[in-house]
Amino acid sequence: MSPGGRRPGNADTKAKIIEAARRVFAAHGYDGASLRAVARDALVDAALVHHYFDGKADLFIAAMALPFDPRAVQHHTEGDTPSTFSGAHAVEGFLTMWDQAEGTGSTFASCVAAMAASRSVADAMRQFVHDRVWSAIPRIDGEDEGMSMQRAALISSQLMGLAFTRYVLRVPPVSTAAPADIGRWVGPNLERYAKESPD
Amino acid sequence: MSPGGRRPGNADTKAKIIEAARRVFAAHGYDGASLRAVARDALVDAALVHHYFDGKADLFIAAMALPFDPRAVQHHTEGDTPSTFSGAHAVEGFLTMWDQAEGTGSTFASCVAAMAASRSVADAMRQFVHDRVWSAIPRIDGEDEGMSMQRAALISSQLMGLAFTRYVLRVPPVSTAAPADIGRWVGPNLERYAKESPD
Repeated sequence: MSPGGRRPGNADTKAKIIEAARRVFAAHGYDGASLRAVARDALVDAALVHHYFDGKADLFIAAMALPFDPRAVQHHTEGDTPSTFSGAHAVEGFLTMWDQAEGTGSTFASCVAAMAASRSVADAMRQFVHDRVWSAIPRIDGEDEGMSMQRAALISSQLMGLAFTRYVLRVPPVSTAAPADIGRWVGPNLERYAKESPD
Repeated sequence: MSPGGRRPGNADTKAKIIEAARRVFAAHGYDGASLRAVARDALVDAALVHHYFDGKADLFIAAMALPFDPRAVQHHTEGDTPSTFSGAHAVEGFLTMWDQAEGTGSTFASCVAAMAASRSVADAMRQFVHDRVWSAIPRIDGEDEGMSMQRAALISSQLMGLAFTRYVLRVPPVSTAAPADIGRWVGPNLERYAKESPD
């Protein structure tokens, strides 16, 4: 390093890539974006993007300041099929991860604010969650993709609503109870979405 | 009106009261605010606030740009006791009213954005909904207020989550189906919250 000179450090380059990623995801959605397009926008070599980020999902998580990979919630129900799915575990895992995120800058409220303020952010987030979570949910024998998506959307609606009630509107006892207790209250409802034919 | 002169019309006065109400609700919450305090903040006579607004709830609805009184949703389940409560009707009523609000400036996304951006707005909203809706939900024989609030919070979490999934994240089929269809899918879950002992 030249004495007295200012060299663009790793943090600068990484921040530049994240800023470019925000623009590219907002313009092209999650599905339409590529690491190559982000590199072009950031005026860096594509290899550098790959050096800092382990693929598109990892870059999206950084760009949207998500506190964790939503796929991690699914790990709480690892190996579950629709017939063995534990709603209580899904709720407990989801709220435990968001509980850990509170106090960082990446709170549920800040994620919700970003989605509510910008349709393109919300659209990119929907595509991301579809790619990371919903498309990986095991199907019930014989059901088509539409029915599988219906289950996923309903399960997500209850989880999102719980987080909104706990972290934004802060309604007791949902805002004060332990994740395991809320899992006990809400789990059977998620299982109904996961297992029963909803029509 | 004097020719060429600009007279502060009714719209100006009403707007001034609404602006004052926003400040007062943010500072003191819904429970702690009064029409008198709003009048003082707006530098108008309290009688003028009563002239424009039919009480504190009406003023809050205007100040928060809510598209409707949440009590109206309850009218869709009028006369229901916990044992006769129709979850399908509650879902259909709630989504029908928000559907009608889309296209106006008072969308679900704009309400969510206001709550996610400001803890004092979210706190005032919680107090308002408690006052208008939750406190009026019939109790199950023998249950205490805490248990009644738990039911209310869980029912609200599912309704809020559905609206978030329909209007912000826009996940099909929750974003595309008719309110009556979603009512059919989700109704039994609301009824479980309303009727069964959740512990």
